[in-house]
Amino acid sequence: MTGPRAWVVGTGLIGGSIGFALRGRGWHVSGSDVDAARSGEALAAGAIDAVGEDVAADMVFVCVPAGKVVQVTRECLSRAPGAVVTDAAGVKANIVASVTDRRFVGGHPMAGSEKEGVAGADSTLFSGRTWVLTPTEETDPEVFASLHGVITSLGARPIAMSPERHDALVALVSHVPHLLAATLMDLAGEEAAESAEVLALAAGGFRDMTRIVSGNPGYWPDVCAENSAAIVKEMEELSRRIVDVAAVVARGDREGLLTLLNRARSARSLLPTAYVAAERVAEVRVPVKDRPGALAEVTTLAASMSVNIEDVEIAHSPGGGGGMLVMVVDAGDAGRLTEELGLLGYEAEVRGL
Amino acid sequence: MTGPRAWVVGTGLIGGSIGFALRGRGWHVSGSDVDAARSGEALAAGAIDAVGEDVAADMVFVCVPAGKVVQVTRECLSRAPGAVVTDAAGVKANIVASVTDRRFVGGHPMAGSEKEGVAGADSTLFSGRTWVLTPTEETDPEVFASLHGVITSLGARPIAMSPERHDALVALVSHVPHLLAATLMDLAGEEAAESAEVLALAAGGFRDMTRIVSGNPGYWPDVCAENSAAIVKEMEELSRRIVDVAAVVARGDREGLLTLLNRARSARSLLPTAYVAAERVAEVRVPVKDRPGALAEVTTLAASMSVNIEDVEIAHSPGGGGGMLVMVVDAGDAGRLTEELGLLGYEAEVRGL
Repeated sequence: MTGPRAWVVGTGLIGGSIGFALRGRGWHVSGSDVDAARSGEALAAGAIDAVGEDVAADMVFVCVPAGKVVQVTRECLSRAPGAVVTDAAGVKANIVASVTDRRFVGGHPMAGSEKEGVAGADSTLFSGRTWVLTPTEETDPEVFASLHGVITSLGARPIAMSPERHDALVALVSHVPHLLAATLMDLAGEEAAESAEVLALAAGGFRDMTRIVSGNPGYWPDVCAENSAAIVKEMEELSRRIVDVAAVVARGDREGLLTLLNRARSARSLLPTAYVAAERVAEVRVPVKDRPGALAEVTTLAASMSVNIEDVEIAHSPGGGGGMLVMVVDAGDAGRLTEELGLLGYEAEVRGL
Repeated sequence: MTGPRAWVVGTGLIGGSIGFALRGRGWHVSGSDVDAARSGEALAAGAIDAVGEDVAADMVFVCVPAGKVVQVTRECLSRAPGAVVTDAAGVKANIVASVTDRRFVGGHPMAGSEKEGVAGADSTLFSGRTWVLTPTEETDPEVFASLHGVITSLGARPIAMSPERHDALVALVSHVPHLLAATLMDLAGEEAAESAEVLALAAGGFRDMTRIVSGNPGYWPDVCAENSAAIVKEMEELSRRIVDVAAVVARGDREGLLTLLNRARSARSLLPTAYVAAERVAEVRVPVKDRPGALAEVTTLAASMSVNIEDVEIAHSPGGGGGMLVMVVDAGDAGRLTEELGLLGYEAEVRGL
């Protein structure tokens, strides 16, 4: 085997999809799972080349339930001493705070399927999808750049942010919507138990709103436990706003209602559909020598400005040391990113490509 | 012109789609709109044969905003004295209480589009969709049967219920979900104004949940005004349940969470996808002579039992008078429907087809 080697731990929907995608790009993929039947299925499906661990792996993907990630990741860091290690859990702060290793970067591919396990796995699952990375001051920039490159090669769009920020945002756009859909479906289900015609009235909009409820519930207890503070905060806020909107309806405030609906419609029009690579790109080169935490700071700044980093690498200075962080971004974004970096004290410069 | 004639008032999305569908089935369709540009567009698009009213129409479809339906329907009943008249508003109780004419049956096709106006109109918009009819004691059974037949011919599934029941149920499965999606999108939009990466994290589930917010907001002020009591009641209930679910999350109650998610998942699995006509049907024949309100009572009973009425007609007794209500239903449903009708005092009988 001369190609790169990956070890996927947990060969379900996400692990299986990573396996398929990596194999399609020339990687040798080993896969292990606490449930031997699942790794056997993944092998039979072609998601992995071999069942078992790979201590010589270049990269390890920990795709186990959120509550098990810390322990499994520590084991993998120890068993595969040369590997970059990442995970795929939907909540990041606890995990990233508990695994402080330069070779580890927390990750969260924002992709899923209504199907469960390797049966739903697909090499294109991540295509055009956001894949969050949570670098910290501890993260080795080389490790980050290498993981960033692999994720980009899978067709995903890596985006860097702090683990805490990630958790607050997914509470809002993923966890709370899921619980909300379940609550709504449950209420309608109770009504339907009394009068069957309820469900006949549930048209396309209702189907859309409750679709995520069809997914595997087993994913959620860990996620809710790990992210309970942010989830509870957003649910309480939402509950208050629902009462406010009910008051708008109760008092027949047509203008108030239209204002809400138009604002929501316009916000939704900004949702990205799928990632499209920039046609014209430029390099932003940032000297990061002797700046601990520079990687996390620079990449999360880019994300907060909606600047997509298409590629990232570390150019070492001849004498060794921190060197240069080189980011490939849309040519139209390079100037404003450089300017913002300047405000943070970075002597960044743009180079056209 | 020897084919049947329809007059569609309001040539937007719904009126235009009805026009397309009727024309495709040999009807001559006239269309009028307070906005002459819209009826002109409908003519140019082929949704109607002619612009203007048709006082000789066999059937009139009032497809104007909910707040205008009562007035327009009364005018149509008066101007087209031989026509069956129906409307398409999303709220029924006020309208049906205000228009007490034997030739009028309230209706609500449960179909829509993200596109607005006749540009979104489509002859297949109602295919497989539920189309609610709200017969009352006043409704002429012949009028109901004739409208039922036309709606079935458009590929829709007519389902009868009282106007009050309709309004309570659409509050739950349509109006509240819409306001909920808007509230959620608005909250995420506010967050996104501060940190642009929010929207990059909004994956498929969030997109699904907020899709309906893309629709035309102009539809909602009338609907919310007409159905405010039911909407407010369900929103307050939902708000309470969200707080309850937040408490489940806050106390780390994994079992409680799984119970909710599994119950919701199982309720959703009961949502109908699209209507499939029964393979084996039977007639249920119900003598309704001297029973005022029999039509509404019998057809809404069927709906509450999830018995689909594939066809309905009135067989007159030779000496005139009330005669026989004949419903074509799935052969497997005929027995239990007959039994329930017996409990209400109807001497119904099943005849195989």
